[in-house]
Amino acid sequence: MRILIFFFSIIRWRSALLWRTFFTTAVVAVVLRGLIEYCRSGKCGLFGQGGLIMFDVGSPMTTYGTPDLLAVIILGIIGGVFGSLYNYLVDKVLRTYTKINEKGPTFKILLVIIISLLTSCCSYGLPWIGKCTPCPANLKEPCPTIGRSGNFKNFQCQEGHYNDLASLFLNTNDDAIRNLFSSGTKDEFYLSSLLIFFAAIYFLGIITYGIAIPSGLFIPVILAGASYGRFVGHLLGPISSLDAGLFALLGAASFLGGTMRMTVSLCVILLELTNDLLMLPLVMLVLLVSKTVADSFNKGVYDQIVKMKGLPYMEAHAEPYMKHLVARDVVSGPLVSFVGIEKVGNIMQALHMTKHNGFPVIDEPPFSDAPELCGVVLRSHLLVLLKGKRFSKERVPTGEAVLQRFGAFDFAKAGSGKGLKLEDVQIEEEEMEMFVDLHPITNGSPYTVVETMSLAKAAVLFRELGLRHLCVVPKTQGRPPVVGILTRHDFMPEHIMGLFPHFSHHK
Amino acid sequence: MRILIFFFSIIRWRSALLWRTFFTTAVVAVVLRGLIEYCRSGKCGLFGQGGLIMFDVGSPMTTYGTPDLLAVIILGIIGGVFGSLYNYLVDKVLRTYTKINEKGPTFKILLVIIISLLTSCCSYGLPWIGKCTPCPANLKEPCPTIGRSGNFKNFQCQEGHYNDLASLFLNTNDDAIRNLFSSGTKDEFYLSSLLIFFAAIYFLGIITYGIAIPSGLFIPVILAGASYGRFVGHLLGPISSLDAGLFALLGAASFLGGTMRMTVSLCVILLELTNDLLMLPLVMLVLLVSKTVADSFNKGVYDQIVKMKGLPYMEAHAEPYMKHLVARDVVSGPLVSFVGIEKVGNIMQALHMTKHNGFPVIDEPPFSDAPELCGVVLRSHLLVLLKGKRFSKERVPTGEAVLQRFGAFDFAKAGSGKGLKLEDVQIEEEEMEMFVDLHPITNGSPYTVVETMSLAKAAVLFRELGLRHLCVVPKTQGRPPVVGILTRHDFMPEHIMGLFPHFSHHK
Repeated sequence: MRILIFFFSIIRWRSALLWRTFFTTAVVAVVLRGLIEYCRSGKCGLFGQGGLIMFDVGSPMTTYGTPDLLAVIILGIIGGVFGSLYNYLVDKVLRTYTKINEKGPTFKILLVIIISLLTSCCSYGLPWIGKCTPCPANLKEPCPTIGRSGNFKNFQCQEGHYNDLASLFLNTNDDAIRNLFSSGTKDEFYLSSLLIFFAAIYFLGIITYGIAIPSGLFIPVILAGASYGRFVGHLLGPISSLDAGLFALLGAASFLGGTMRMTVSLCVILLELTNDLLMLPLVMLVLLVSKTVADSFNKGVYDQIVKMKGLPYMEAHAEPYMKHLVARDVVSGPLVSFVGIEKVGNIMQALHMTKHNGFPVIDEPPFSDAPELCGVVLRSHLLVLLKGKRFSKERVPTGEAVLQRFGAFDFAKAGSGKGLKLEDVQIEEEEMEMFVDLHPITNGSPYTVVETMSLAKAAVLFRELGLRHLCVVPKTQGRPPVVGILTRHDFMPEHIMGLFPHFSHHK
Repeated sequence: MRILIFFFSIIRWRSALLWRTFFTTAVVAVVLRGLIEYCRSGKCGLFGQGGLIMFDVGSPMTTYGTPDLLAVIILGIIGGVFGSLYNYLVDKVLRTYTKINEKGPTFKILLVIIISLLTSCCSYGLPWIGKCTPCPANLKEPCPTIGRSGNFKNFQCQEGHYNDLASLFLNTNDDAIRNLFSSGTKDEFYLSSLLIFFAAIYFLGIITYGIAIPSGLFIPVILAGASYGRFVGHLLGPISSLDAGLFALLGAASFLGGTMRMTVSLCVILLELTNDLLMLPLVMLVLLVSKTVADSFNKGVYDQIVKMKGLPYMEAHAEPYMKHLVARDVVSGPLVSFVGIEKVGNIMQALHMTKHNGFPVIDEPPFSDAPELCGVVLRSHLLVLLKGKRFSKERVPTGEAVLQRFGAFDFAKAGSGKGLKLEDVQIEEEEMEMFVDLHPITNGSPYTVVETMSLAKAAVLFRELGLRHLCVVPKTQGRPPVVGILTRHDFMPEHIMGLFPHFSHHK
């Protein structure tokens, strides 16, 4: 349960949304807390074990000096390198998997079967390499254990001994992380076991992401990072006396920083996973170092995935080369526009011929003195209007009255895939020659920019206001009132580079 | 030291700024932590006592049921009422103080002397009402104490006794808060002492804010809230068994929520003051309740102060009545504009006659086919250009070359009060008849809206992009290319209500 995770999401939210999120989060937290209390008395079976804090490691109050900081920085640098390597490999693997998955469901399922067999072999096979260790004295928890979660798996050892590699592999991921994060357990894991576990998890994490199962990136990266952190902590023992569990936490942070690159949100997530505010300075330091190192190699893993899927993601800032262009330069034509009272046939033809989602509406004489921009009409609204079939034989304004024949929610935004499609609208031959008044469904206050507006400033407007369409209007008079419509695709570097190959696309 | 406070400030920041803030915060946290470690060994005298967590109360793991939640909700409701009353009284007192302070420095100082005398009388006088209590057994800290910070002030009691009221009054505010927040000290304070302390601090807090000393609102409100919380916790003892220190924390949260109304940031601040993530659900709940209750009475204290000072603060959302207006409706005239190459005398006259900070620049024939908007020029840039005195006798374009005669930072934004003033620019009589080309200093890509744009949408544009000037352009052709310029003042409810008295200003 991530109470605090909403803090990082609030960036750039409106205050109404913030307030609602806060409200729901508070209710969830209180109710969940109540249910955990109720279940802790054993009324829900195994359900409800655990608490609000996922890995409540309760580390001892740590003090640290310059050598410790040095160790943390080294940990961050190597973590950053491994993190960016992770991104690089995930990218390569994902591209391969995309090709395999495209071949059909058989290949998809085959891929899943191969990966899960491989994972099973690793999980069961590798612990055989592990050595048996006598259980430490003065333990609060049972040791060794069989068939339940917790530290110290017995595996194939004799009585009173445990297999440290099995304690990591044959466990839930959550418990393995908790084991690695636990403090005061410096000698629980052999150096060789940590190395084997790290290599296996790092490798399995990379080849698992992208197959047809619901799996994420967070837990594999934390797991690999925690084992890496413990391993490096062992090696750096001579210069740093920080706890092995703390090293595991910092290692996880360095991997997260190296792959995801979201410093502030990761900081918050790690804080609420561990509930230790005093670790925050070290966590921040390691995140800073690993993000900086990894940024010099490649982009964050989510940026990579967005790019690979071809989603038109607009960066928060305008690219430098946009300062040398104006809005008119990137408008892609041809422009398809409607007049205020348009022939049904023209609308149907435009909807058939283009995939545009917004069309400018232009008032022409005799309904205005000169052609002028009336507004923008959306494809989805056009479809609803056409399906309503309130057409007139003459080119006359019908006014708002026509809207009363529609239900209150007919023009509301439909759920994904639930809106009307062009195939749903059947127009008779004679209706094609009739007219429909677009004014009632036209957005009369579209945001506009002049054609000579700097593209960088147009991009800021587009992004900050979260627009879908931006009308470009002419600067000089006596020309058609709309030059074109800018959409998200027109701001994409690929589009602009296609138009102006001499601009180099530097980040 | 507030490590986490930056989390709440990041709302709406750009990512570059976020990253820099994170970096500096990490460095500060690490360095501060190092210095505290260094000073803890006694090398810095009294300096360096304490830690990163201001009130590390280390409460026992709390469990709570429905009656406890009910108690917390009651606490929040009453806290909300007291919080909004605090706002109301602070507002009244501030208005009175503003009048007194305007009368001159003598009155200012006299006011400070009176308030400080009153505070001293309360701090020393009221503890005499307090009763002497025997020191509890099994204490880790010394009791009673004289002349140092901590709980259990001896004041005028006999050996082995302490005065609970003196422990609150004759202490630093930080220590008093720590005393109130401390857990497992249910019987340390008498109910009557808490009531007296609460009344005194509530009253003193209200009359202290606004006098000519550097004082804030946070600590007085936390102090009053903490004593209120303990008091109510005592009274609610029959239905709730929560710790008295936790009640004090929740009381402080309810007062903060009732006065400041910033739920998320307060949550973060309380979290890092106390370092207890498990309290978060209760803190969120009490903040929610108290903010909701207080919102039904008046606005937050900072909103009140902004309004009282007459600052043109734009709300994040557009007011509902703005949907019924268009941009043209609220433009305040008359418009003062320049032509591209303008007579120096005209510029000087405009700068003298108006206080406008931005002027539209319009290109006219023969420099364009028809009058068209070239851009916006700032008053500060005009002053720099005029002081440079690069004038020409004829109306000819000089181009960018003229800028080379200025230094790189001449047009940079000057620090507050450091920019050129109109008096600094001396123009000879003959120069008044000369011309200056404004194109080099004109912002050629101003954001514009059409005059018929919904005022609500114009307000969103203005606010989201953080504009100072917004050009309103005509919809129909054949008219001057600018209708007017919208500034922040034009969006203020007072301005709009003056123009359209029939719109009522509902929040």
